[in-house]
Amino acid sequence: MNVAEKITVPDTRHADALRFLAADAVEQAQSGHPGAPMGMADIAQVLWRRHLSHNPADPGWFNRDRFVLSNGHGSMLLYALLHLSGYDLPLQEIRQFRQLHSKTPGHPEVGLTPGVETTTGPLGQGLANAVGMALAEKLLARRYNRPGHEIVDHYTYVFLGDGCLMEGISHEACSLAGTLGLGKLICLYDDNGISIDGDISGWFGDHTPTRFAAYNWNVIADVDGHDAAAIDAAITQAKSQASLNHPTLICCRTRIGHGAPTKAGSHDVHGAPLGADEIAAMRAARNWHHAEFELPQDIVNGWNAVKAGTMRQAAWQRDYDRWQAHYPDDARELALRLSGDIPADTLQELEALLNTSDALHSKVATRKASQLVLEAITPTLPGLLGGSADLTGSNLTNVKSSVWVNHHGQGNYLSYGVREFGMAAMMNGLALHGGFIPYGGTFLTFSDYSRNAIRMAALMKQRVIHVFTHDSIGLGEDGPTHQPIEHLGALRLIPNNQVWRPCDGEETALAWQAVLQRRDGPGCLILSRQGLTPFTRDKAQRAEIARGGYILHDTTQPQAVLIATGSEVEIAMKAASALQDEAIAVRVVSMPCVEVFFTQPASWQDQVLPPGLPRISIEAGASGFWRGVVNQGTAIGIDTFGESAPAGQLYHYFGLTPDTVCDAVRSLLKTSQ
Amino acid sequence: MNVAEKITVPDTRHADALRFLAADAVEQAQSGHPGAPMGMADIAQVLWRRHLSHNPADPGWFNRDRFVLSNGHGSMLLYALLHLSGYDLPLQEIRQFRQLHSKTPGHPEVGLTPGVETTTGPLGQGLANAVGMALAEKLLARRYNRPGHEIVDHYTYVFLGDGCLMEGISHEACSLAGTLGLGKLICLYDDNGISIDGDISGWFGDHTPTRFAAYNWNVIADVDGHDAAAIDAAITQAKSQASLNHPTLICCRTRIGHGAPTKAGSHDVHGAPLGADEIAAMRAARNWHHAEFELPQDIVNGWNAVKAGTMRQAAWQRDYDRWQAHYPDDARELALRLSGDIPADTLQELEALLNTSDALHSKVATRKASQLVLEAITPTLPGLLGGSADLTGSNLTNVKSSVWVNHHGQGNYLSYGVREFGMAAMMNGLALHGGFIPYGGTFLTFSDYSRNAIRMAALMKQRVIHVFTHDSIGLGEDGPTHQPIEHLGALRLIPNNQVWRPCDGEETALAWQAVLQRRDGPGCLILSRQGLTPFTRDKAQRAEIARGGYILHDTTQPQAVLIATGSEVEIAMKAASALQDEAIAVRVVSMPCVEVFFTQPASWQDQVLPPGLPRISIEAGASGFWRGVVNQGTAIGIDTFGESAPAGQLYHYFGLTPDTVCDAVRSLLKTSQ
Repeated sequence: MNVAEKITVPDTRHADALRFLAADAVEQAQSGHPGAPMGMADIAQVLWRRHLSHNPADPGWFNRDRFVLSNGHGSMLLYALLHLSGYDLPLQEIRQFRQLHSKTPGHPEVGLTPGVETTTGPLGQGLANAVGMALAEKLLARRYNRPGHEIVDHYTYVFLGDGCLMEGISHEACSLAGTLGLGKLICLYDDNGISIDGDISGWFGDHTPTRFAAYNWNVIADVDGHDAAAIDAAITQAKSQASLNHPTLICCRTRIGHGAPTKAGSHDVHGAPLGADEIAAMRAARNWHHAEFELPQDIVNGWNAVKAGTMRQAAWQRDYDRWQAHYPDDARELALRLSGDIPADTLQELEALLNTSDALHSKVATRKASQLVLEAITPTLPGLLGGSADLTGSNLTNVKSSVWVNHHGQGNYLSYGVREFGMAAMMNGLALHGGFIPYGGTFLTFSDYSRNAIRMAALMKQRVIHVFTHDSIGLGEDGPTHQPIEHLGALRLIPNNQVWRPCDGEETALAWQAVLQRRDGPGCLILSRQGLTPFTRDKAQRAEIARGGYILHDTTQPQAVLIATGSEVEIAMKAASALQDEAIAVRVVSMPCVEVFFTQPASWQDQVLPPGLPRISIEAGASGFWRGVVNQGTAIGIDTFGESAPAGQLYHYFGLTPDTVCDAVRSLLKTSQ
Repeated sequence: MNVAEKITVPDTRHADALRFLAADAVEQAQSGHPGAPMGMADIAQVLWRRHLSHNPADPGWFNRDRFVLSNGHGSMLLYALLHLSGYDLPLQEIRQFRQLHSKTPGHPEVGLTPGVETTTGPLGQGLANAVGMALAEKLLARRYNRPGHEIVDHYTYVFLGDGCLMEGISHEACSLAGTLGLGKLICLYDDNGISIDGDISGWFGDHTPTRFAAYNWNVIADVDGHDAAAIDAAITQAKSQASLNHPTLICCRTRIGHGAPTKAGSHDVHGAPLGADEIAAMRAARNWHHAEFELPQDIVNGWNAVKAGTMRQAAWQRDYDRWQAHYPDDARELALRLSGDIPADTLQELEALLNTSDALHSKVATRKASQLVLEAITPTLPGLLGGSADLTGSNLTNVKSSVWVNHHGQGNYLSYGVREFGMAAMMNGLALHGGFIPYGGTFLTFSDYSRNAIRMAALMKQRVIHVFTHDSIGLGEDGPTHQPIEHLGALRLIPNNQVWRPCDGEETALAWQAVLQRRDGPGCLILSRQGLTPFTRDKAQRAEIARGGYILHDTTQPQAVLIATGSEVEIAMKAASALQDEAIAVRVVSMPCVEVFFTQPASWQDQVLPPGLPRISIEAGASGFWRGVVNQGTAIGIDTFGESAPAGQLYHYFGLTPDTVCDAVRSLLKTSQ
């Protein structure tokens, strides 16, 4: 952009282009949210035209600034920005706003629309994703930059509204962002004083600048969100202070729906079309003499960022090439991390562990087996970023080579604090940024807290690994608040989620392998607190673990099949042995991952679970899912809350014993005769 | 307590009684958390012996101060306090800490142990429950107190730790508590600088006093948590300022495990027994010459609060009786509210609505039908407290007589802000306090955010009503982040939860009746955004709705049964009609509440779903649950994420149409022939 352009086309005209695209698209769809795009148009105009370092011609450019629209209902703002900047999002897509298979869905979806960095809509999570992205940048910069070679050097910008700030996850993520000193995280708060229920003063009385000061943030308060110069000055100040290691919150006073002659400033403009009359009046009031979806050439020119972006990326590439020449090993490592591939070394370490480790093949809690795996593979996977929501010693998520992340950006292990939801959403951001395979631990019961972020990882097809330990009543005395019952079933219900519940050390190692090798979705590892007996497998059986379910123990003419997962496999095996003494032949199937098993070819499923063979399932949790598997058979589980007592007693109290299984088999065989 | 006692038995001795009971009980159980009880013993001693207004002889005394141990892992502190104060919790129960069927489970459980006000353990929620309790007190006080008659007048005290403050829900609840001006909420923060992962400075750098100042709280910082006089002064100051309408946070600097000679101040003391040697050394160091679980008489006397409590309650009763004599109508109303009964008026209004309302029997969104119900019953139920997490106009949770709760304590409707989890946990507190039937709305997909609080309501057997609207892909353009898929199934998995998904206005009214009349657990109402066609029922059918599932449409010789819920009942009915034209006779079962249906007598279940009759289910969500119901039949559902598009298109895209159902029936009948 040259000076002449600046003078001939004022900033407000560029901002108005966003406003009209948003208003027209919502009107066309007769659905959507014009208020936030119109209220934030001036802020967006300044950020995107003067500050954002990106290249619309290559949305995947690694060192681009990340931009997150945490108030995702304002999606039309982002689509307008992407279209105008020159991303591959033609006007035809804007006209198709919110229509089936368009690239402009109701809320932004990463992977669908070029330039969208994360899927937002569930409030607060975009902000937490951005904290993860800013952390990713800081860790990578610290690891790979060298004097004179700033190859990792970008900002993470966030737009957010009152809703994001009311959500609890904003506290979790922003508190940690302050402690971690994420100085290149710059958040712009659309402080319009309105939420869906109306004037927020009745339910949101926070003094937000003070709150963020308490988090050790750099707060720039009282910025006029419709004054381009003021916004520009604030962003410039924020960027200039990045090295001081305080994230920045810029509080922008705005009017929701700014520009709408009669509706601006009211919650009516939040989530409904303005109406043809209002839009016409707005066109008149703002001297916008262009038809709907029509953009004058000077505006198009003023927005297009392809040329500048291409030059910027080319300059960075030259820097990168110089760095690569100086530090080829680092460059190879970074390339591997960015590829997301699991190196052969990792698989070899896993194989060696499986073949040689006594500890893995002893009676061992699967949480401990998981730690043995991590111990083996961590040195081979520099992108692995471990952590726990303040349960490291219980989740056993750390290893000897763990270095705690500090506010200088060093480390490979993060104590996220007691922030399950924040952890999960930050891990989504780390994965989205690239360069990391994040895993984080908490107790399975607290997957409730992080649940929607797991869902978002599944929706966004991100490899995020959840280590959920203390997976059943087997945790014992902590009692019903801590004992998962419905959690396994509930996690399995999330589309595109994979839930692994291994029964011993070997299955744990191969569950880790599966979730690491899975590139298009999250993996949940469900691990025991208590020690579990190891089983011996032949080579074929070991390979079959990856199929999600396989025959662990068989007889020539099985009369029934026992299906179990995790700690209950041992019970099934004992029952099989006891039944053998009565000349009742049963097969035992271990099914560590039902999602994988039930997407195997029918031939494999039928081989493992022959149709017609009576089925009994046993799992220390809700039986609902299993009823659909056993059909007329028996699902042994727990459908009430747990109790506080030593684990062994609880297994008896809840009837999860070999005896119960034997009774169920006898009873079922009697009925089916 | 008289002055002589004060002199002869110092405060620290009384606090040490708590310490030794906690340490000995954890040691006996070889399981539990001694650190928090020992660190907070001095604070507890001051609060419980000098301030707490309660009556151990009547734990249900309505005007008692509420005490919430939000850091519930410190349960032994609470059990020690209850035992020593004279609650019906004998020493034998303390010895049985964490054993099966004891009254001293790993985490405090309301309803199990006299004097426990709420079940705590999942961090942050106790604090949010307490905000609900304090709000309950404020609303009741404003409604029923008269000059000279302060019959509702109690404090709500909370103990909380770093974990509670890191959790996002602490932000949601405390922000709202500040805005609502809950001046009688007094929180004591156990600021020991230690969490499970160690020294918190690496992951929790908040300046907490500043943070709470931003919430408009009264903050008393830097109190020595082992100095009884300082603690006493802080609590006294907090109480004296109650009328200024600022909740109080007292930040107490403590040492975790204070008293343990070598382990105090370290995270080792958080969640593991101290060990016999350490306890012996502590006995010596603190001059505690009593065996384990042995309490000297002077300490017993100094703690016992039965006499003082009985007198306090008697004095209150005299006040109450005078108030009752002056204001008999108010007294009757309050008594009704505290009884929790649903008055006959309410049921009559529902009946009248069912018999006379055209709107209820028109094509109507069930969210709108729900509003019609609320409109009818709200005037009859003064304890009904409505609300929404900032989606009032979408959830339709408000009515004409809604008065928004303000910081003077007036109102019957609360805009909770965008705080789903906080809302759910506050509603739990409102229900636990008594005098309220809370209901709150949000979109079904955001039940993920509040999920663990719904679980806690189920575990605590509390009547809390969740109004979840926008219940499927039928919400249309907002897309996959907002379209529930797995949520219905996941909510059904929570033990003791009841999930109602009505198919039209009548079912909606009777679903409301069911959740209102349910006294021992939460109810979730799953409501449509879009209009649904009404069905006609005879009187018997209408009554059968309460059984959770019933025959909506039948034929003399059905060849198959279609089972549907909510918006899909209409699809099933259309399919039945189409099949009739082909001379295929099918029954249609509407099943608005599977939890209720599957706990009916087998005779009813068999009558509705005759064994052997092929079954096809249809529900716009995850099919997992239904596979267990249809067995060899067909479960039509959606097991992938949704899409952004108009609702009608989505139903076709996902194959939820009468045609699909007809195909499934034909195919199933062919197979089963």
